[in-house]
Amino acid sequence: MKPRIALLLGDPAGIGPELVARLLASRDLSRSANVIIFGDRSALDDGQRIAGTSVKLKEIGSIEEVTQPHQPAFLHLPAAEVGPIVRGRVSAAGGRSAMITAQFALEQARARKLDGMLFAPFNKEALQLAGSRYASEIALFAHELGVTGSYGEHNVLHDLWTSRVSSHVSLADVPACITQARVLETIQFLYKSLRNYGIANPRIAVSALNPHAGDGGLFGSEERTEIVPAIADATAMGIMAFGPFPADSVFLRVKTERYDGVVSMYHDQGQIATKLLGFHKGVTVCGGLPIPITTPAHGTAFDIAGKGVANPGAMKEAFKLATRLAAGNMKASTK
Amino acid sequence: MKPRIALLLGDPAGIGPELVARLLASRDLSRSANVIIFGDRSALDDGQRIAGTSVKLKEIGSIEEVTQPHQPAFLHLPAAEVGPIVRGRVSAAGGRSAMITAQFALEQARARKLDGMLFAPFNKEALQLAGSRYASEIALFAHELGVTGSYGEHNVLHDLWTSRVSSHVSLADVPACITQARVLETIQFLYKSLRNYGIANPRIAVSALNPHAGDGGLFGSEERTEIVPAIADATAMGIMAFGPFPADSVFLRVKTERYDGVVSMYHDQGQIATKLLGFHKGVTVCGGLPIPITTPAHGTAFDIAGKGVANPGAMKEAFKLATRLAAGNMKASTK
Repeated sequence: MKPRIALLLGDPAGIGPELVARLLASRDLSRSANVIIFGDRSALDDGQRIAGTSVKLKEIGSIEEVTQPHQPAFLHLPAAEVGPIVRGRVSAAGGRSAMITAQFALEQARARKLDGMLFAPFNKEALQLAGSRYASEIALFAHELGVTGSYGEHNVLHDLWTSRVSSHVSLADVPACITQARVLETIQFLYKSLRNYGIANPRIAVSALNPHAGDGGLFGSEERTEIVPAIADATAMGIMAFGPFPADSVFLRVKTERYDGVVSMYHDQGQIATKLLGFHKGVTVCGGLPIPITTPAHGTAFDIAGKGVANPGAMKEAFKLATRLAAGNMKASTK
Repeated sequence: MKPRIALLLGDPAGIGPELVARLLASRDLSRSANVIIFGDRSALDDGQRIAGTSVKLKEIGSIEEVTQPHQPAFLHLPAAEVGPIVRGRVSAAGGRSAMITAQFALEQARARKLDGMLFAPFNKEALQLAGSRYASEIALFAHELGVTGSYGEHNVLHDLWTSRVSSHVSLADVPACITQARVLETIQFLYKSLRNYGIANPRIAVSALNPHAGDGGLFGSEERTEIVPAIADATAMGIMAFGPFPADSVFLRVKTERYDGVVSMYHDQGQIATKLLGFHKGVTVCGGLPIPITTPAHGTAFDIAGKGVANPGAMKEAFKLATRLAAGNMKASTK
């Protein structure tokens, strides 16, 4: 059985509907998944007009109507209708449409009617305007899916997975986050996700915190006191973890030393590298949830919304990842 | 008149002599400069053997013998003879040879017999073993050249120049370095160097310190309290400075927004990007000295020393930069 993958239009004021249109037109998605798009039908129509595509969809009223279709299905949600909206502008209406669609899709996931989900970019500010009380999309997902364990984001580029010990904190607050326990937890979290992805013995590279990895303690000691012990703990658990490597060389090592994942210590350390390595291909994967949820690593790109120039590269990668991860889960659960 | 450019072999235990051999063989350097190589003649012979090159050099006893030559000259320094040495290993002998050669070349520069200098990589540890009391190569240069003003390093990649507010300090010590005065000083320093390089009105992009540039103060306030005011100060002085931009997007903007330089707040912020953008092309330029001194951004690469596989890309770029900067200085001083 093919996995049932939900496709969400994201904030309709951004490039989301155009990306969904381009993804649908790019190849026959139904070969690898039962695709169901949720949202406001007129927003997708706009997206198709902007993208210059004309993919036909099967209109359905509930997921139960999806039975091995040969074409993607569309489930229109009246509550997500966005009405007249200014494209390229933050709005409560855009945020509300995205949030209502997400909540509906998550309900379906909770009822085990979905195996994976891919959403076009949301806008954090629009979500706040629409009354969201979540700090991030993944916090919304975790809450609606009833997750009680640890969850977090991975940035994935081609086959390289990354994870970070600290995230949206000031640079001054980073060093306090770099404890042996948190570094180990991040290594383990990345390890689990890579195993789910289908890599039996993932090789994980761990970044240093300080320049030149502290140069033997000359500037900074967190390598010695926190990171090295955490790597030793991981190794003792049978995880192939290496480092700490200076942050300005760790991504250069990935290819020659065949790493499957990189643990960064803070936001920009990983993001500077992954954005440069492939801004139009990067995918964010929400890990630790009962179903895989993916999204392009880029945002709503309000500056180019409606111009018909959005690059669907990351959206295509996000679809591939959601499908592969969902199929992997299904295989594992029938074993 | 062509600029007189000194070429130093660097640490003979590393890839330096091989890089010099490859540079000499790559094209006729004498077309743009009077090239004088300083050091141990047998180290260069080794380099030529490793590189498989056979460039003929004119042996000279003093710089005065260089009069518009059509071939590069070699000035052998008996004091820099390295003797039997283990290639690929840190040694006091290697450090001493590199340091004595540098001191001799700097003496010549002080006597106005040189217009620029390019050195193959030194090894910091070897210099220490050889008794150097300088924290960095540039500190040695500044001292020997009698510099009293401010000096510092730029990393240059193709035509993009970078500079950083803090450098070899622990990540925990970075935030204290990010003051309005220091950010402004770094912008001005980069501006001056770009002007020397021949860019009349350089455009400079300034990085933020915190992820997402602090997201409106949500995580970190240095953008508002230090960096924005420094950019305003620079603007008031007539410098085209922009930002602060999130560190994970600033290097993506360079091309589309045509920046000539980027100011980073800390070491890895700039180095992660420039190493990924062109590890084999990056050049370090010592700024604030009476003559331009350049070197490849990479190190001695002991792991591949003697194997005949060293990439001379950065060395070639370093030669081009030293020559261009020296020619620019000469033109300016005859105006």
